[in-house]
Amino acid sequence: MRKYAIGVDFGTESGRALLVDVSDGREVATHVHPYADAVIDALLPTSGEKLPPDFALQNPTDYIAVFKTAVPAVLAKSDVDPADVIGVGIDFTACTMMPALADGTPLCTLDEWKDNPHAWVKLWKHHAAQPEADRINQTAEEMGESWLSRYGGKISSEWFFSKALQILDEAPQVYAAADRLLEAADWVVWQLTGEEKRNSCTAGYKAIWSKREGYPGEAFFAALDPRFEHVVDQKMSRDIYPIGEKAGELTEEAAAWTGLQPGTAVAVANVDAHVSVPAATVTEPGRMVIIMGTSNCHMVLGEEEKRVPGMCGVVEDGIIPGLFGFEAGQSCVGDHFAWFVENCVPCTCKEEAESRGVNLHQLLEEKAAQLAVGESGLVALDWWNGNRSTLVDVDLTGLLVGATLATRPEEIYRALIEATAYGTRVIIEAFEDNGVAVDEIVATGGLPGRNKLLMQIYADVTGREIKVADTDQAGALGSAMFGAVAAGAGRGGYDSITEAAQHMARLKDIVYTPIAEHQPVYDRLYAEYVTLYDYFGRGENDVMKRLKVLKARARS
Amino acid sequence: MRKYAIGVDFGTESGRALLVDVSDGREVATHVHPYADAVIDALLPTSGEKLPPDFALQNPTDYIAVFKTAVPAVLAKSDVDPADVIGVGIDFTACTMMPALADGTPLCTLDEWKDNPHAWVKLWKHHAAQPEADRINQTAEEMGESWLSRYGGKISSEWFFSKALQILDEAPQVYAAADRLLEAADWVVWQLTGEEKRNSCTAGYKAIWSKREGYPGEAFFAALDPRFEHVVDQKMSRDIYPIGEKAGELTEEAAAWTGLQPGTAVAVANVDAHVSVPAATVTEPGRMVIIMGTSNCHMVLGEEEKRVPGMCGVVEDGIIPGLFGFEAGQSCVGDHFAWFVENCVPCTCKEEAESRGVNLHQLLEEKAAQLAVGESGLVALDWWNGNRSTLVDVDLTGLLVGATLATRPEEIYRALIEATAYGTRVIIEAFEDNGVAVDEIVATGGLPGRNKLLMQIYADVTGREIKVADTDQAGALGSAMFGAVAAGAGRGGYDSITEAAQHMARLKDIVYTPIAEHQPVYDRLYAEYVTLYDYFGRGENDVMKRLKVLKARARS
Repeated sequence: MRKYAIGVDFGTESGRALLVDVSDGREVATHVHPYADAVIDALLPTSGEKLPPDFALQNPTDYIAVFKTAVPAVLAKSDVDPADVIGVGIDFTACTMMPALADGTPLCTLDEWKDNPHAWVKLWKHHAAQPEADRINQTAEEMGESWLSRYGGKISSEWFFSKALQILDEAPQVYAAADRLLEAADWVVWQLTGEEKRNSCTAGYKAIWSKREGYPGEAFFAALDPRFEHVVDQKMSRDIYPIGEKAGELTEEAAAWTGLQPGTAVAVANVDAHVSVPAATVTEPGRMVIIMGTSNCHMVLGEEEKRVPGMCGVVEDGIIPGLFGFEAGQSCVGDHFAWFVENCVPCTCKEEAESRGVNLHQLLEEKAAQLAVGESGLVALDWWNGNRSTLVDVDLTGLLVGATLATRPEEIYRALIEATAYGTRVIIEAFEDNGVAVDEIVATGGLPGRNKLLMQIYADVTGREIKVADTDQAGALGSAMFGAVAAGAGRGGYDSITEAAQHMARLKDIVYTPIAEHQPVYDRLYAEYVTLYDYFGRGENDVMKRLKVLKARARS
Repeated sequence: MRKYAIGVDFGTESGRALLVDVSDGREVATHVHPYADAVIDALLPTSGEKLPPDFALQNPTDYIAVFKTAVPAVLAKSDVDPADVIGVGIDFTACTMMPALADGTPLCTLDEWKDNPHAWVKLWKHHAAQPEADRINQTAEEMGESWLSRYGGKISSEWFFSKALQILDEAPQVYAAADRLLEAADWVVWQLTGEEKRNSCTAGYKAIWSKREGYPGEAFFAALDPRFEHVVDQKMSRDIYPIGEKAGELTEEAAAWTGLQPGTAVAVANVDAHVSVPAATVTEPGRMVIIMGTSNCHMVLGEEEKRVPGMCGVVEDGIIPGLFGFEAGQSCVGDHFAWFVENCVPCTCKEEAESRGVNLHQLLEEKAAQLAVGESGLVALDWWNGNRSTLVDVDLTGLLVGATLATRPEEIYRALIEATAYGTRVIIEAFEDNGVAVDEIVATGGLPGRNKLLMQIYADVTGREIKVADTDQAGALGSAMFGAVAAGAGRGGYDSITEAAQHMARLKDIVYTPIAEHQPVYDRLYAEYVTLYDYFGRGENDVMKRLKVLKARARS
């Protein structure tokens, strides 16, 4: 009898369920449920209040709707007997965090708190906690906190304690009312199983926790704010569950939402990026997985802990049990191209695309592919949404140099693609310079299947072969794999994620190989990128930050 | 009996005739004749040969067509008796130069030479003679040529000897066949009067001539190329006629072309920019005239010769007899906005503009005007077409810094306008730092009437009042004024250009005054511009030039 697992992948705009055959990883049925409130970055749905700049909130009710809608949909589409579904795994954007009562009730669902933006879920791309991140970084440096170098020397405004501290700063009454502050990833697992079990991946990558050292000490939190001293014991938990473990079993209530059987195994929560690594066949050092979508996430495994300046973090057991998982990221990749297509492409292109039955991205890719390397004369810094690795600075902004009156849209489009490839090369070189090997790349996410030019440029710029995971939904597949591991071999699943990967994950046939004659030209262009990167990114000319200050003042 | 003068203004794409009442400057009739071959920058019309990069040629036959079409048209439209037209003046883009036989026949009209691009007119924006300009500058520096500082320390690829030397370098047979190398301005006057008389304005600003020192010495030309030693005596002339003089009178043939009477006074040729100064009421020091169109040209008068780094030139009697005329320029202003609107504005804007019955420039201006100073967070270097003043470097390219995913087209549009205003402020500060006063600005050209936002930004950024000349065709009006001076008071005209300006030129009522609260923010933005200007423009990071080299290689 065939057994199945379901992965539920909570993205930025929607949640996806994927029903997978445990024996071979075949993707049997999938369903996407868009969040009703999507990303809340303009007006608060309850009060209609205008949100401050850089806020990005979500409504947790939308997450439960995914269980109620997408999971029954894949059962219906596949005609699989719920009794044959042995496990459920979930993955989530992170750090996406929320305040809740002790019983898990989100504060934003309560009349008392629903009109306060800080009672809502703070989505990963909520960037308004930069002052708090700055304070955390400065305090950590002053106090010589040893954990800082695990995170490349700087923690991000996106992370757990930046967001938690912002709640305390700006809405102390919300902070006081929050019995729990937790990742939405852990919250949805809690809703499925009835038990709060926090996962090692978000704890390690987003909340400064490590298996060996735990959280930062209370003296550190107290130095940030005396009221913050006991944040871990008051509102979090020191019981952290390794990924790959079973969190619990479906409650009757959750079984009713999903149409699955009560008692179905549920895996400890995971992060969308990290869960994609085994889904891309990678369970060993040397092969970097890049998830290429709105942003890029770079993950690679190592036998030893190395501290790499500017990476997002290194977490033991953070990706694959038994190895150190290294993560880096670029905060603006597909978002870049989408911004460009929406804001900067003239009607003539749109008309040409329509007349030829292609979309604008396809048209621009095709035209850009006809350019020789270096022909555009353009170099960009891909910082339209700041720089995550290696500078960890959301206040950096985009730059384009080299435009002339003959510059065409497809040239700028190509320059933006190339800039993201240079950014990836900076990250790879940072890893290799610090003893973390990156011999090969496996790509996954939305972009690899959509843009061959981009893939070839990445191969040419990085000088590495790029393979592509054979799934369009690596997050959901990886979650299903972890669901199969939560069930275990005894119930028809697997006893380890490595074993699951051997059966359930595979690569496509296509391989992007660096083109020899492109590489020397890209080496020169990359050298220009690095010079600009250092000049604008490392303090020599902080014009980007000063312009942001003027911008904020002009708007106030 | 009323008397009239006609100004003929030869622009980049077309020629314009303007018939003006000499008594009060009233513009009675105007007519524009587009050049059939316009700007020849892709294929040579005769052979269909693909032109090299940066070539920009013209067909001199198109100039004669302006006399044959536009002048009769203004006579017909105004119903003025040709006998009452007392003088004709012409102004031209410059340096726009050509090779001709001794009788004035352009080489490109001869079967023998018509297929050679170097036999054609080289338009002002022909930028392919940069290697020759570099050689001239380097040689002049090495030889300690005293004239170099009259031109801000560098001569341009656009200028006469750069272009002449390029002919010698690339087409020595054309060079040998050319009995005359001359400005198209002087050539058209020659066609009208039958006499070759070269004007002091183009000689001074474009051909390194000065009233006191003449041309560079033959040793200098010989150092550039032994065959170039006698270029002045072999192919040019040392007889230079001051502007404001009469060049001659209309021949029978030219009278037949134009419908005017033989014997009508014709003024010595002038340059479109310089002739606009008296048309903008300026005949004294302290008031800078800026001609704002596809490019900006800045002119100001002084009592003494000052040498200002990076300006285009200082020429005694170059603008107004008896004063030193200082010129500076920005090579990309309206061209900038046109490029942006054509290449970078999405359909949504176009649809909005159409639905509201405005053009895209108007729509973007309106949206940009709603932004506070600094709100875009953007700064640009306005070098899409290189930098004329103060860097004199065509290999510089455009830069935009500060973009985010929230950046809108109107924000970039405004940043481009602001960048050109910063560029103007750099020029003004260079003048003032070197003892040339700029107390006030008088604007003319196409932009002042079209874009109030731009005018206000220029006032805010420069901190100076801006007035606007009350004519939409200052070049043609100025030429008509010089036509009236060529005729002289005895024939119903004037004996000096100052006198002509008092009667024939006026300002509009509108005055743009700096807004006090904008200035401190613009001072800060300007400081950022200057830092970037120096970094990218003065050798600290020559990325723009290196990208141009890679671009040229990629295309070869």
